[in-house]
Amino acid sequence: MSYFRAAVDAMTGYIPGEQPKPGTKIIKLNTNENPYPPSPHAVEVLRTLDSEWLRRYPDPYAKDFCQAVSEALGVPSDWILVGNGSDELLNVIIRACAEGSDRSVVYPMPTYVLYRTLAAIQPAQVQEIRYPEDFQLPIKKLVAAKGAVTFVASPNSPSGHLIPLEDLRSLAEQIPGILVIDEAYVDFADYSALPLVFDLENLVILRTLSKGYSLAGLRMGFAIANPKLLSGLFKVKDSYNIDAIATAVGTAAMKDQAYKNECANQVKISRTKLTTDLKNIGFEVLNSQGNFVLATPQNNSAEYLYQELKQRGILVRYFKQPGLEDKLRITVGTEAQNQTLLEALISLIR
Amino acid sequence: MSYFRAAVDAMTGYIPGEQPKPGTKIIKLNTNENPYPPSPHAVEVLRTLDSEWLRRYPDPYAKDFCQAVSEALGVPSDWILVGNGSDELLNVIIRACAEGSDRSVVYPMPTYVLYRTLAAIQPAQVQEIRYPEDFQLPIKKLVAAKGAVTFVASPNSPSGHLIPLEDLRSLAEQIPGILVIDEAYVDFADYSALPLVFDLENLVILRTLSKGYSLAGLRMGFAIANPKLLSGLFKVKDSYNIDAIATAVGTAAMKDQAYKNECANQVKISRTKLTTDLKNIGFEVLNSQGNFVLATPQNNSAEYLYQELKQRGILVRYFKQPGLEDKLRITVGTEAQNQTLLEALISLIR
Repeated sequence: MSYFRAAVDAMTGYIPGEQPKPGTKIIKLNTNENPYPPSPHAVEVLRTLDSEWLRRYPDPYAKDFCQAVSEALGVPSDWILVGNGSDELLNVIIRACAEGSDRSVVYPMPTYVLYRTLAAIQPAQVQEIRYPEDFQLPIKKLVAAKGAVTFVASPNSPSGHLIPLEDLRSLAEQIPGILVIDEAYVDFADYSALPLVFDLENLVILRTLSKGYSLAGLRMGFAIANPKLLSGLFKVKDSYNIDAIATAVGTAAMKDQAYKNECANQVKISRTKLTTDLKNIGFEVLNSQGNFVLATPQNNSAEYLYQELKQRGILVRYFKQPGLEDKLRITVGTEAQNQTLLEALISLIR
Repeated sequence: MSYFRAAVDAMTGYIPGEQPKPGTKIIKLNTNENPYPPSPHAVEVLRTLDSEWLRRYPDPYAKDFCQAVSEALGVPSDWILVGNGSDELLNVIIRACAEGSDRSVVYPMPTYVLYRTLAAIQPAQVQEIRYPEDFQLPIKKLVAAKGAVTFVASPNSPSGHLIPLEDLRSLAEQIPGILVIDEAYVDFADYSALPLVFDLENLVILRTLSKGYSLAGLRMGFAIANPKLLSGLFKVKDSYNIDAIATAVGTAAMKDQAYKNECANQVKISRTKLTTDLKNIGFEVLNSQGNFVLATPQNNSAEYLYQELKQRGILVRYFKQPGLEDKLRITVGTEAQNQTLLEALISLIR
């Protein structure tokens, strides 16, 4: 027999975006990192951390961090489950809830491709419902798919659109399983679905420190849901999933909401400018609520522009997928980075 | 329907050992941490780390760390897979290979109880083969169980015994699936099974930085196996499973083999003394190749001693499990900690 399960033999792994080393002379607008550094308080934690925190096993529940989230967001601390990035939490949710064809994974697409990869590992059947052109949430079709787990990213990537709260509520009320609202990009958006979590027993809100808090290197995400729902997820997560340093650094970052908001505001201002500038040179650009824009060049192939930008030391994201092949997803960088990108595009387009 | 899969509803989660906060006045001999601090070079990394490593996504393969392992252990760097603690790698292995009753999980017991928990989540059928009194590896029974995954911890916890290499080789050659040799405690042992990995295509060696390297708080472990075997595991692991700080700190620790060996030697000396001292006050103690000893009091209940020690600020591990109910697993501490433990035991025993 194969050493591996049939589902694993059959699948190809997830391919993460390119990650050149820090220090490499590259403008990196491909994986939606925040262009600004993390909170100075978070960095300071590293400088002063007692090595005793390294020697010992970490707190399996990262309670200090939960307390900081509780204070920052006004959520009881036993409504919080911390993960090794929200990617781990997506994984934990699928492992806790999804399986085969009876307990399927459902989501509108295009969206975060990792949902599909994680379902393939389980394995759980996937039902992908295509968004209409106007990106209205296809509630009826999502409900009809009867998922054990339904994922909705809001703001969604790569489209950047935010889902109205009444649509999310309506979806949660009609599906038999849980609704996971993936708010990875919420720090750059006009509103959050967080208030809904107190009304809907099948709702999980996912957050990450990778985007708004500039801590993609730290791997910290968290889920917010009622304690009964979290109890099943706790059984599945690795007991010591969060390291002691990440807990300490993440806690300091979570306490510094003012800094995070200031950086996010700057990103939003730059996003507006970048959208306008790209439109002015002939791109179609969707209005985005994330820290990226999805842009369609008019007279050039997106793949060609992606390759040429890369030659010039500018990384953007190109997805070779139906519906996205003519588009580029561009992370909002600093003003200077965005300007360099624009100049490169102007020199490339016809 | 339940929001959770039947396997998850049916199980209880793994209960990790008690983890009081650093700073708490307690002698902690319950979860086999190294009593000495991590390498000063590893701690120095924290003091000087560029915050750019926090802002960006980490290297999904932790290549710097793999290179350091390669140099320290003489293994090609593409034979290494890094995990968020070896616990994550146990999980990845089960998810890649085990499933239902056809692809079962097999191990001799008593051993690390997490194997059972992780199989229950999958779910995969578990076959536990009891060790005989002399802790000879029950090869015939393990082979007959035909596991898709067979785990053997060597040194084993809580018994502390090391498995002869010829037994491990014989087992690997006869089973249809993979053999995982969990070497969490190998830094305190007389030998490693690492040389076998080059001969046996179904062998995985697991290592951790939690014990020998005093980095339990960091969550770093790694698997060593041939690249073909690793390729299936790579598909299942989370893409960004290791954070950037852990990679940098772990790399520095791995490079400082001299420091690790010095601390391990001191632990071995203390282990011999603790074993003798416990025997002298009437405990039966197995010879251990780990950084702990399994001790059986003669005239007192182990649970009573565990509770009384806890009252006195000394944590040891008590497993309420068949075959272990009359025993305590005691981590080897510093000389001073071991002495305090002994004095407390002398005051408690009849």
